[in-house]
Amino acid sequence: MIQIGVIGAGSCDREMEILAEEVGAEIARNGALLICGGLGGVMEASARGAKKESGTTVGLLPGDSRKSANPYIDIAIVTEMGHARNVIIARSSDALIAVGGEYGTLSEIAHSLKMGKTVVTLNSKWDIEGTIRASDPKDAVRIALNSISEKQ
Amino acid sequence: MIQIGVIGAGSCDREMEILAEEVGAEIARNGALLICGGLGGVMEASARGAKKESGTTVGLLPGDSRKSANPYIDIAIVTEMGHARNVIIARSSDALIAVGGEYGTLSEIAHSLKMGKTVVTLNSKWDIEGTIRASDPKDAVRIALNSISEKQ
Amino acid sequence: MIQIGVIGAGSCDREMEILAEEVGAEIARNGALLICGGLGGVMEASARGAKKESGTTVGLLPGDSRKSANPYIDIAIVTEMGHARNVIIARSSDALIAVGGEYGTLSEIAHSLKMGKTVVTLNSKWDIEGTIRASDPKDAVRIALNSISEKQ
Amino acid sequence: MIQIGVIGAGSCDREMEILAEEVGAEIARNGALLICGGLGGVMEASARGAKKESGTTVGLLPGDSRKSANPYIDIAIVTEMGHARNVIIARSSDALIAVGGEYGTLSEIAHSLKMGKTVVTLNSKWDIEGTIRASDPKDAVRIALNSISEKQ
Repeated sequence: MIQIGVIGAGSCDREMEILAEEVGAEIARNGALLICGGLGGVMEASARGAKKESGTTVGLLPGDSRKSANPYIDIAIVTEMGHARNVIIARSSDALIAVGGEYGTLSEIAHSLKMGKTVVTLNSKWDIEGTIRASDPKDAVRIALNSISEKQ
Repeated sequence: MIQIGVIGAGSCDREMEILAEEVGAEIARNGALLICGGLGGVMEASARGAKKESGTTVGLLPGDSRKSANPYIDIAIVTEMGHARNVIIARSSDALIAVGGEYGTLSEIAHSLKMGKTVVTLNSKWDIEGTIRASDPKDAVRIALNSISEKQ
Repeated sequence: MIQIGVIGAGSCDREMEILAEEVGAEIARNGALLICGGLGGVMEASARGAKKESGTTVGLLPGDSRKSANPYIDIAIVTEMGHARNVIIARSSDALIAVGGEYGTLSEIAHSLKMGKTVVTLNSKWDIEGTIRASDPKDAVRIALNSISEKQ
Repeated sequence: MIQIGVIGAGSCDREMEILAEEVGAEIARNGALLICGGLGGVMEASARGAKKESGTTVGLLPGDSRKSANPYIDIAIVTEMGHARNVIIARSSDALIAVGGEYGTLSEIAHSLKMGKTVVTLNSKWDIEGTIRASDPKDAVRIALNSISEKQ
């Protein structure tokens, strides 16, 4: 099963939420698994989108309890590793989509690029060499899926 | 969804494999998610058992690639953290079942008990205070599930 | 420089403290570096012993701040990784000495043995195959140092 | 003791090496501890510089053996955690100096800024909001030390 990571800030405005939700929904429509950090903001919105389309969601939590997971997480991986869980999100995703995002997201983008993963960005303030800017959620998921099939 | 961890050695004899496979099958029959280390031996046998009963399996891999997962893993979490992934297995499981096992399994038993998790053992060479010895796979899964419902 | 890990509970009685302090002092007298978990109990007592003999101490902290280190830690490594820091203590030590200890210590003993490290125990409630029981702190450090020189 | 992290690529040109070596030397002259990733390139050059001035160096290694440390590392912390060791470097440093650097360094810059640490850059290709650009090694260490004393 294809595993796509969605990364972004733990709190975000309504516009970013709508984007993230649509990214999650599109991932589910394509039969892929959504991996995220399991908390609020972009993570929650993308998981909600995936569940609306009957997808499956994994939350890689930074803390030490399942209870911190947002309500749209099917499978909670409790890392107890703080920011190091960002590395696990990068490693576990076949490709990643960054929706907006601050420093935490930048760290995930950097780890992912270092590992040779495709990173698609949507409304990103970071313009990091090696990332691919998408025009909308459908475009982002399409680019991510294409990059994975090319690598296989 | 209830998440049960199955821990045990990466290579094991036929008797241990049969036990592990039946533990995995019983977890799936009870509608719980199976979490394991994703590699061979007890990990592979338990995941195979879960898939035979149409369950869902998560493999928390120690290395840096999905390719090391056994063929019965649905969701591969690539931790790239070596033995530290044992801590994540313990944290992510609502209760754990140890099938046989050597030093790696002992570390997982110890981490789990330290976190206050129920640890059921089957054919264990370790007799650690705080673990509960089960008589067979059905018994092991029953004890694990009961301990979780008592905690809720 | 030889790196010896001292492991044990974060709170302990006076008798255990005296043992741990003497272990730390003996490590320093032998010119080795003391590695520990950086918190209280056995960790603090062993670091205090090492500092009395002008040794150097490293604390591998589980939390996210240097402030949690006991006052006898020279070098604070802030792992932010909870129990997974036990794995780093095991990996970073050329040999380990367990003074007493509960489940956390048991996890470190298990990780260390899995990695092929020598583990010496003092007043341990755990009698794990592969560990070496010492009669007193001097004996413990002597066994640890001998095991390291044999491996080189 | 003040702990300053030096981050940068594992292989680098002569110009970058000279800068890194001078950063390490200046850290040692100021009585601070140098923390780095323990491997080659900028890590090795900065550790060499610190040792020339009789400083102390810590290498936080990504692999599972002390043997991968460069010859200028006094204290080898063996994390066995791959890229997640970058998070530990960020957490353990009171301030960080990035010398050049590729994606790995970018991930460390991002983690450090997320944690509220001061990050000084020298010859960086990344121009990330929140970092402070230094004109030369002395300037970099001065900025790092000043930021630490202001926070205390």
